[in-house]
Amino acid sequence: MQFTAEQIASMVGGTVEGDPQAVVSTVAKIEEGHKGSISFLSNPKYTHYIYTTDSSIVLVSRDFKPEQTIKATLIRVDDPYATVAMLMQMAAKMLTPDMKGIEPQSAIAEGVEIDDSCYVGSFAYISKGAKIGRNVKIYPRCFIGMNAEIGDNTILYPGVTIYHHCKVGTDCVLHAGVVIGADGFGFAPVNGHYDKIPQLGNVVIGNNVEIGANTCVDRATMGSTVIEDGVKLDNLIQIAHNCHVGTNTVMASQVGVAGSTKIGCHCMVGGQVGFAGHITIGNGVQIGAQSGIPRDIPDGKVMMGYPAVDAGQFARQAATLARLPEMMKTISALQKKIAELENK
Amino acid sequence: MQFTAEQIASMVGGTVEGDPQAVVSTVAKIEEGHKGSISFLSNPKYTHYIYTTDSSIVLVSRDFKPEQTIKATLIRVDDPYATVAMLMQMAAKMLTPDMKGIEPQSAIAEGVEIDDSCYVGSFAYISKGAKIGRNVKIYPRCFIGMNAEIGDNTILYPGVTIYHHCKVGTDCVLHAGVVIGADGFGFAPVNGHYDKIPQLGNVVIGNNVEIGANTCVDRATMGSTVIEDGVKLDNLIQIAHNCHVGTNTVMASQVGVAGSTKIGCHCMVGGQVGFAGHITIGNGVQIGAQSGIPRDIPDGKVMMGYPAVDAGQFARQAATLARLPEMMKTISALQKKIAELENK
Amino acid sequence: MQFTAEQIASMVGGTVEGDPQAVVSTVAKIEEGHKGSISFLSNPKYTHYIYTTDSSIVLVSRDFKPEQTIKATLIRVDDPYATVAMLMQMAAKMLTPDMKGIEPQSAIAEGVEIDDSCYVGSFAYISKGAKIGRNVKIYPRCFIGMNAEIGDNTILYPGVTIYHHCKVGTDCVLHAGVVIGADGFGFAPVNGHYDKIPQLGNVVIGNNVEIGANTCVDRATMGSTVIEDGVKLDNLIQIAHNCHVGTNTVMASQVGVAGSTKIGCHCMVGGQVGFAGHITIGNGVQIGAQSGIPRDIPDGKVMMGYPAVDAGQFARQAATLARLPEMMKTISALQKKIAELENK
Repeated sequence: MQFTAEQIASMVGGTVEGDPQAVVSTVAKIEEGHKGSISFLSNPKYTHYIYTTDSSIVLVSRDFKPEQTIKATLIRVDDPYATVAMLMQMAAKMLTPDMKGIEPQSAIAEGVEIDDSCYVGSFAYISKGAKIGRNVKIYPRCFIGMNAEIGDNTILYPGVTIYHHCKVGTDCVLHAGVVIGADGFGFAPVNGHYDKIPQLGNVVIGNNVEIGANTCVDRATMGSTVIEDGVKLDNLIQIAHNCHVGTNTVMASQVGVAGSTKIGCHCMVGGQVGFAGHITIGNGVQIGAQSGIPRDIPDGKVMMGYPAVDAGQFARQAATLARLPEMMKTISALQKKIAELENK
Repeated sequence: MQFTAEQIASMVGGTVEGDPQAVVSTVAKIEEGHKGSISFLSNPKYTHYIYTTDSSIVLVSRDFKPEQTIKATLIRVDDPYATVAMLMQMAAKMLTPDMKGIEPQSAIAEGVEIDDSCYVGSFAYISKGAKIGRNVKIYPRCFIGMNAEIGDNTILYPGVTIYHHCKVGTDCVLHAGVVIGADGFGFAPVNGHYDKIPQLGNVVIGNNVEIGANTCVDRATMGSTVIEDGVKLDNLIQIAHNCHVGTNTVMASQVGVAGSTKIGCHCMVGGQVGFAGHITIGNGVQIGAQSGIPRDIPDGKVMMGYPAVDAGQFARQAATLARLPEMMKTISALQKKIAELENK
Repeated sequence: MQFTAEQIASMVGGTVEGDPQAVVSTVAKIEEGHKGSISFLSNPKYTHYIYTTDSSIVLVSRDFKPEQTIKATLIRVDDPYATVAMLMQMAAKMLTPDMKGIEPQSAIAEGVEIDDSCYVGSFAYISKGAKIGRNVKIYPRCFIGMNAEIGDNTILYPGVTIYHHCKVGTDCVLHAGVVIGADGFGFAPVNGHYDKIPQLGNVVIGNNVEIGANTCVDRATMGSTVIEDGVKLDNLIQIAHNCHVGTNTVMASQVGVAGSTKIGCHCMVGGQVGFAGHITIGNGVQIGAQSGIPRDIPDGKVMMGYPAVDAGQFARQAATLARLPEMMKTISALQKKIAELENK
């Protein structure tokens, strides 16, 4: 996919200065520009790069006044940053297949209404009582359980499983292999074996949530496991039964959250972090990768380690740890000196 | 789903005391009761809660004698705990779709017999030579490989994959995305690259095993990877080739077990724990979350840490670690004092 | 599956010494031999085992001269090790279903060419513009996105998802549930929520790559996430957007690599290791299980720990850590002695 300066200018309402036939196929930061890339200049701190960048095209504001010669072709627009974001969105739309309609080999239960704006791929299975919003895209081999609900504009990529009675909000993206609403891990010890505790609740996912490939969110024992609006979960994450994840919290890959734990809003959780069950994490908490969280954390803390401590303390501990073997020697030397002093 | 006291009493053979039209839709602990929930009183230690609980209905034993007025409607039964467990099982049955029959868009190889008591969903694929027990539920888009066997009453949720020659016992539950019998991770270094070592064995899963969403159990190089009766595995767990997991052992989410490791019976393994390969873990071992297990553990030990040590020792180490920076200062002070003493 | 000594000898061009009707069904190391297994003797160091092994058949070289009586039936061949490897490959071929042809319930977009040498299972979905090589096996319910490419001889086991525009090389094996090309985890904070950064790149996988069950490799924001030739990834691994994994690098299960990290060639990475984003790991690096890698590592290093340090240093730290509580006591004792000395 390639575009000329002329084509881009006409798409974004800009004016070309330089070669209207300059061709680009990718976006790059102005300081990392290369032939065939388009960059933008928005922050005045980066202005000096425009004179050296190898990008073929640079988006600049209409009032930008160059002070030296510029190799790149310029396109003048009202807001260079907004324009580049728009161009990326347009490119995404071109690259991503725009699927519509119901493919013939799908299986949709009687009585389920599918709006004309939706896509239902082959081998997708939609159970009795499911409610599907407008403009929903259900890729091949998704499974929507009985009475499950999918909100408007949500995309389910191939192989997503939504168990019965679970709800997904509007404008969500669930990537391939996501499992929503499998049974929570609940067993009661009885005479040396385990009896299954029925998992009667569901999962409720808010709006604007994105969930990465093969991530699992288990249904609640009673009530709901809740993922609030704007949450972003990376791949291969585990959210156990009865957890609650607050709005706009972000978790990197392979995080595990044990049962009934409540995580606040606007938290940032690094990869492979583990949370104990039945704890409460405040709002705006940041947790370093691979940390282990055994207990509550108040609002706004930055934590790190196993078990996690304040990030500053973790750094000091790690530094001290590196000096431990040397410290051992110091102590032995002190013991000797004291013995000598005592002998005097 | 709502029930009145009257309906519940008739289902469980109890007698109502209070409002027969009291309505409940969920179960709650008596100390956490709220309007619309049903609780039970079994342990006498909790008796005082019955006078303050907000639960709409409480199950009590036939001989319970209240000493104050009680807001909730009572239902008298022989065994309140057993009754509430039964009610939860009944609710689970009502909530969970009871699927039967063979859906037309499934693919079942010639010669495979499916009993009338079974369910085979659309887009399920059953290969040649597979043996399917009675009352098995195979949800849409499951894959059963050649000569694989599935025991009576087992449930395979959507998208489970059972590779060729693997065996799953009776009364098992495998959640969405489980993969049983993918090749073990075996490669021989040859001239700077790796040659695949054929994985000729299989996986054998016992009875009453539950396996969580997207968990993987690899086939053995030779012989079998074995999951014994009553084992419960949470989501996103990795069990490598030739491992052996003993009866009634329970593992939380994201645990990883490397090849040929043998884990005993009745163990409890916390989330994200990692086991080295070719080690032996005794019976009744408990391992704290995120621990790393580099070597054998005898029966009955409680372990924690990376690398794991006795749980008591881990707690002491963690406490000492927190005091390390202060300790450093103490040592410096001692050095100074000794220097002064030596100068005298 | 059973074979007699006579049958095996005729398959491998060997000569039988002993019972031509001796029957085997599995392979075992000579020191672990048992009735019904075949072993081989290649390394002279193991020669003494041949007089005690319980294997029913042993492959030996044509010039082997026994010095005692041998219970097992011998088959003399030119190269016993090469012969046993060949037998295992043959067994693998017999055990693994050899699928061919296009099953009727698959969905293949118009214009996609499938060579007669290929297998496409039921419920597999191949999108417009996809290119499928010769002798490719696509098991049931795989999804191949728009314009994706699959090289010759590659096997996609059930439920693999290849997103649009991604490329998989020749002679690869992708196990069940693998997800290639889901969106990278990229979001820009805007007024307290997150806007999705379009993920415009793809994934490019080289030749002879094996990827374990439910492993995820995300597409690049721009450009490509690259997995080079000969890489072996175990199950449940996460490779984030814009990562680059060098030739013949091997990763055990549940490793996580954050965005834009570059890992060299011939590295060996233990299970559950986590890599920070935007770092560079050299060639031939070895990393112990569960380590956390926060920064660059030069070629050839052996690392371990959280955060990872040189493996030798890690061992010393762990040893010192175990002695910490005792060290604390020593320091207290020293303090006392010094106080006494000062009082004098």
